Amino acid sequence: MFKKIVIFGVGLIGGSVALALKKLPNPPQIVGVGRSELSLQEALTLGLIDHAETDIASALQNADLVLIAAPVAQTPAILKAIRPHLSAQTVITDAGSTKSDVMAYAQAELGQQFNQFVGGHPIAGAEKSGPGAAMADLYVGKNVILTPAAVTGPEAVQKVATLWHHCGALVSNMRPEEHDSVFAAVSHLPHLLAFALVEDLAKRNNAELLFKFAASGFRDFTRIAGSHPEMWRDIALANKQALLQELNMYQQAVSEMTALLENNDDKGLFDLFEHASEARNAWAKSKTQ
Amino acid sequence: MFKKIVIFGVGLIGGSVALALKKLPNPPQIVGVGRSELSLQEALTLGLIDHAETDIASALQNADLVLIAAPVAQTPAILKAIRPHLSAQTVITDAGSTKSDVMAYAQAELGQQFNQFVGGHPIAGAEKSGPGAAMADLYVGKNVILTPAAVTGPEAVQKVATLWHHCGALVSNMRPEEHDSVFAAVSHLPHLLAFALVEDLAKRNNAELLFKFAASGFRDFTRIAGSHPEMWRDIALANKQALLQELNMYQQAVSEMTALLENNDDKGLFDLFEHASEARNAWAKSKTQ
Repeated sequence: MFKKIVIFGVGLIGGSVALALKKLPNPPQIVGVGRSELSLQEALTLGLIDHAETDIASALQNADLVLIAAPVAQTPAILKAIRPHLSAQTVITDAGSTKSDVMAYAQAELGQQFNQFVGGHPIAGAEKSGPGAAMADLYVGKNVILTPAAVTGPEAVQKVATLWHHCGALVSNMRPEEHDSVFAAVSHLPHLLAFALVEDLAKRNNAELLFKFAASGFRDFTRIAGSHPEMWRDIALANKQALLQELNMYQQAVSEMTALLENNDDKGLFDLFEHASEARNAWAKSKTQ
Repeated sequence: MFKKIVIFGVGLIGGSVALALKKLPNPPQIVGVGRSELSLQEALTLGLIDHAETDIASALQNADLVLIAAPVAQTPAILKAIRPHLSAQTVITDAGSTKSDVMAYAQAELGQQFNQFVGGHPIAGAEKSGPGAAMADLYVGKNVILTPAAVTGPEAVQKVATLWHHCGALVSNMRPEEHDSVFAAVSHLPHLLAFALVEDLAKRNNAELLFKFAASGFRDFTRIAGSHPEMWRDIALANKQALLQELNMYQQAVSEMTALLENNDDKGLFDLFEHASEARNAWAKSKTQ
């Protein structure tokens, strides 16, 4: 179905799509575009892409699909650069972790051709980044959320869904604001909380002693604090309103838990911990079925 | 060196010590004591213990060492029950996650024989519990902290250190208050924060939708929220003062981070995330060396 796919940003996210597509019986030509010469060279060497392009016009020629997998802050500039060379047959999608902002960028930059844009968010990743971290099976069994607008062409949505099906993913549709509200809660909030915990300990005088005795609980809780700082700055700012609301609700929840402890409310603490552990274990079970 | 060891509470922690000792060339006799008949029967069936005892006097006869590995809240009652049957040759230790409270219990309950007690805390565990979760290699390469008092006999400390060396662990000594302050920061705080996050989401109207799209970041961050509610209620209450201080400092750290976001301080957010991710990744590297 795909003959030529252009990927802006051939790191973990874009590179893993490229590797999955290369396993198809008739893999498309994959063209990589990026701001880093070094990453593009690495992607070529690793066989993620067939060509590295610096000229956008020639990259886009006869492209079926453009995947923007660069940091979200670069999306407006990429859309602006694409626009003059965009044929009516080329569908554009992205892989950003926030969607209201991306849909607004696309509407502003693509004008009449906004109906060729389908916002997307693959729910997969790792704390590692770069072309060397790419894996062909990164998306197998993972959720991908598409956030088409009212004007988006159904065939464009279908094309992007097919791209992700080729990667082994499960595709759902959501409104952009609903997407951002859900991910503020289940992803962006935990990331910020993990960054805050590590920073809280790392800046203390006895940080070395603390880190010496930090063990598996700390390891798992803070794994996401090893994530890419630029990416998470952009996500936090892009999803600011939903995230501020989540931070506020979480602080309230911690204050309520703290009050139970201050009041030696053993039943209250037990009930909270029991309810949370039951919910966590039920969730884990549902994910392995 | 050990001929007879008595373990109160043959779950994950006590059972894993038993399994490690059974691998010695001349394994000691291992006697299990516990409040749950079912757990003791399971420990017998699994071969963790040689005998299950309900009579404390006969359990303690000729015992080299008593390991208290029951929930910390039971420690005073266990010490009280042991005292009348305690010979001068028997050393007592525990495996509780808090140490100031345990040392105070031991001093109160053991009187003159307090010098035979060595507080201990193996830094290992899993979210699973019970005899079936026990593993012979649970403690290999893990830290165990001993918190002897000024009056504790050096030969008692040596005996407990030897027990843990047999399990493959690295043994350090600390003052009880220092131990509790360190573990409030690196263990107890993250556990409470993980419980609070899961509870914060689980009680919402759209919890089902949220949990559907929660992925690997949420999984790791909340793994410790699947922990034993009774154990964590006891730990929280036992280490209340240090934990309240940690909760307070953490909420301040989150408030400062929230202010950066409110003010669109992109540099401030980037610096915080970068510093935290560097600290987290350096820590992870240090742990694998």
